[in-house]
Amino acid sequence: MTEPQSLPYPSINAVGITGLPEIHDGDNLGRMIAEAAQNQGTPLIEGDILVVTQKIVSKAEGMLVSLDTVTPSQFAREYAENADRDPRLIELVLRESKSIVRMDQDRGVLITETKHGFICANAGIDQSNIPDEDVVCLLPIDPDASARRISAEINAVTGVAPPIIISDTFGRAWREGHVNFAIGVAGMDPLKDYRGTDDANGRILHVTTIAVADELAATAEMITAKAINVPVALIRGMPYQPDVGSTASLLRDRTRDMFR
Amino acid sequence: MTEPQSLPYPSINAVGITGLPEIHDGDNLGRMIAEAAQNQGTPLIEGDILVVTQKIVSKAEGMLVSLDTVTPSQFAREYAENADRDPRLIELVLRESKSIVRMDQDRGVLITETKHGFICANAGIDQSNIPDEDVVCLLPIDPDASARRISAEINAVTGVAPPIIISDTFGRAWREGHVNFAIGVAGMDPLKDYRGTDDANGRILHVTTIAVADELAATAEMITAKAINVPVALIRGMPYQPDVGSTASLLRDRTRDMFR
Repeated sequence: MTEPQSLPYPSINAVGITGLPEIHDGDNLGRMIAEAAQNQGTPLIEGDILVVTQKIVSKAEGMLVSLDTVTPSQFAREYAENADRDPRLIELVLRESKSIVRMDQDRGVLITETKHGFICANAGIDQSNIPDEDVVCLLPIDPDASARRISAEINAVTGVAPPIIISDTFGRAWREGHVNFAIGVAGMDPLKDYRGTDDANGRILHVTTIAVADELAATAEMITAKAINVPVALIRGMPYQPDVGSTASLLRDRTRDMFR
Repeated sequence: MTEPQSLPYPSINAVGITGLPEIHDGDNLGRMIAEAAQNQGTPLIEGDILVVTQKIVSKAEGMLVSLDTVTPSQFAREYAENADRDPRLIELVLRESKSIVRMDQDRGVLITETKHGFICANAGIDQSNIPDEDVVCLLPIDPDASARRISAEINAVTGVAPPIIISDTFGRAWREGHVNFAIGVAGMDPLKDYRGTDDANGRILHVTTIAVADELAATAEMITAKAINVPVALIRGMPYQPDVGSTASLLRDRTRDMFR
């Protein structure tokens, strides 16, 4: 684990990175984030973790698609008509998915498993924070690779290679409201394992594994609010387990999953 | 909303409250938390939100049960035998539940809807951080009422009535690892509604409601780690919508839920 700070109590600070311009295909996002952090007086230091919202990563990777270029299949057209949705968007959702988890035309619900293995509405495609009305944004093709690249880009200008979490906003089973989840991880273990450790009474804990990457994403959402131009959060003071990092260990294997 | 701080970027600080003694039935938990915060040099101020882990709330409310006092039903005995689990614990899980969501004796899985409406393993009953081997801890009977009481107790000694989130650690559908969720809320709206607000491009956002109470609980887990004696987190700098508060709005109505 990285070293905790020296206060007599645990303390974590989450800071929004402001001042980033509109992101375009090919931008060096890591360098831009490092410079923005520097410019606002919170330069990156060893131990910091960065949570980067998916939208700017997708924009830097050219994942915007004009709906005019999409020809919907018959299946997409029929569902879209019954659900009162755009058939071109439905076609894209199907193309980005490897299986359909729930599809309900009366409610307009289309929850799929993306090619990455994320279970979410509309394969993570969305239309907010995009200048053009008829353009939508797909998830990065390989968000773990995106996270590794951003960390390397930051390292190239600062000498610090922070762990990177790429976050997106998903709904949940059973509960109202969305929260942010990790869809890409680099530089840290996304899981924190309490198994085999003692609790406060010396009893061995044997079941709890914490999805710390999802907790970091959730924390970051509180400052990277959708309507405000703060697409990155810097988390300082959170010890982590250095690791190559990958979201694969966050995805429950289909054979162990009782809820699809 | 409460006022954000005056920094040129958003910033949230989460601090663990240390130095609380072992909690017993009848303890004035709010006063003990306020005093512990004061003693460690982080006294509560207006705008702070407190996240209190469920275990100490249950202990203060006498929710510990000795398994010796529980006589399992035939249904509990048969499931426990096939799943290789303690029949007295299974009996308690059934008594605390209003429906069974998934029950699999081969995997030892028992996911229920608690009487409060939370969907989680074992009705939230657990055995960690309890001195006696044969004693387990139930969830508070009315965690929203618990949260209101703790806030009032704090107000009585500090003059500040902070929003209170009571948190517990649950698994999720589709994803590995547990995270903390809000099971009790007082003093703030647990949901943050972006519907009707503009995004950064002036386009109206129309779908996103964020479960900010769950995000606060997830943030707090990062410092109220299970194996460490830090049962409370103080969140400073997070604007919130004052409200009576209740977890009811976080629970998806059965008729809208596609995953039970």
